[in-house]
Amino acid sequence: MYRQITSPQNTAVKRLLQLQEKSRNRRKEGVFPVEGIREIGLALKGGFELSEIYFCEELFSSEDLEKLIEELKNSPQITSLSSEVYQKLAYRGSTEGIIGVFKNRERALDDLKFDKKNPLLLVTEAPEKPGNIGAILRTADAAAVDAVLIANPKTDLFNPNIIRSSVGCVFTNKIATATTSEIISFLKRQNIQIYAAALQASEAYHKIDFSGASAIVVGTEATGLSNEWLENSTHNIIIPMSGEIDSMNVSVAAGILIFEAKRQRDFKN
Amino acid sequence: MYRQITSPQNTAVKRLLQLQEKSRNRRKEGVFPVEGIREIGLALKGGFELSEIYFCEELFSSEDLEKLIEELKNSPQITSLSSEVYQKLAYRGSTEGIIGVFKNRERALDDLKFDKKNPLLLVTEAPEKPGNIGAILRTADAAAVDAVLIANPKTDLFNPNIIRSSVGCVFTNKIATATTSEIISFLKRQNIQIYAAALQASEAYHKIDFSGASAIVVGTEATGLSNEWLENSTHNIIIPMSGEIDSMNVSVAAGILIFEAKRQRDFKN
Repeated sequence: MYRQITSPQNTAVKRLLQLQEKSRNRRKEGVFPVEGIREIGLALKGGFELSEIYFCEELFSSEDLEKLIEELKNSPQITSLSSEVYQKLAYRGSTEGIIGVFKNRERALDDLKFDKKNPLLLVTEAPEKPGNIGAILRTADAAAVDAVLIANPKTDLFNPNIIRSSVGCVFTNKIATATTSEIISFLKRQNIQIYAAALQASEAYHKIDFSGASAIVVGTEATGLSNEWLENSTHNIIIPMSGEIDSMNVSVAAGILIFEAKRQRDFKN
Repeated sequence: MYRQITSPQNTAVKRLLQLQEKSRNRRKEGVFPVEGIREIGLALKGGFELSEIYFCEELFSSEDLEKLIEELKNSPQITSLSSEVYQKLAYRGSTEGIIGVFKNRERALDDLKFDKKNPLLLVTEAPEKPGNIGAILRTADAAAVDAVLIANPKTDLFNPNIIRSSVGCVFTNKIATATTSEIISFLKRQNIQIYAAALQASEAYHKIDFSGASAIVVGTEATGLSNEWLENSTHNIIIPMSGEIDSMNVSVAAGILIFEAKRQRDFKN
């Protein structure tokens, strides 16, 4: 009753592989694949529309499939894959037999609405490593920040490695991407103070009052933040370091800064 | 004038490959390989003895080699490798043409001496992912903690992936490995308070006074800390989280806890 694919050479399989591997293909089609039932559930919870389901009968039960379909508002195209085809597509060792294709939904800066006077935002400029982006999104989720803004992104967020390393937090956070200039204008329009993390900065982060509307901005490990941030910030802030090497991981640095803000706010959301 | 190796089949090449890949071989021989001049410099600075040097004349200049040798107290065995052989051994894209083999030096718990009344220690139980261990060691270096203790290690620290991901901080930190029981006894003997991070804990980390002799203990992302830690701690502590998923990266969590202790100590070493 469902479309069946048993040949790894099928064009639909090739398309899925390309969606997994190529940012360009995801962008062109405006969709992205998600592997695993938990991650699919989080994407649905995050408000993304599931347009296609690929499952492997040997691994994913038809009851679970029906349960999933019942929860949907739309009717996705459903395809059954042979074991051989599924193994070609699946990333995981302990794979679950299901891949969803979701419609991309870019969030524009101006769509962001804050329901409080003193939102706490995390901004990351030109992040590159999926592992670091994932760890930052996990921290942002745990801190319940009001938005994550990605300035001058080097990759799309729906890269399978980011979905995996964020353990789904790419779907639970409010995320918007834009250029550095656009984000700076947005923050200024909204009267949100800009705290730019920089190794050359003079103000120690823990002396800053983060209780007002605040954006904490981190750059890359290799080059730090661009001058545009450093020149447009309210304060440039530093984490005092006293080791031999002083090279903190960027997701650790972001975590220390965000949780200092949370501490000052007594962990109130 | 140096030993020359031009065949990738040479037994010395096979041995080096195995030292890179197998913890068992490193342990059996009591040595570990280090690639890159910066990393070799850090290992020397950390007091490790360089017993063998392998270099590729096309990539590493003989002046740099002489400069390195002059700084040593001992006379390592030196081998010149052909380009082909070196490429087989090198990990890096932009490789530097030099690999050192160092003598392992296990630090026993009881060798650790603290020159202050209130040392700050970071303990990590059964860490697995080299990327997380590397990030934790970078944080420990930046915070200049007095020691890093690794309980029930799953891998040896001189795994090439840990050396790389720690950007050399595996050599700059004081590190000791032991069983959980041994470390708990050690901390108790030294009157160091034990703060065990646990998702089920009731005390928020920022309410704890870390100004006395303190060990901050983190477990794995998958299973957290063993009961032995939770039952023997001074306090079990939690980072308050309020997201959808609440799954912080372990190196981020360790960074937040360590830097809260640093903040309370006003960043004095």
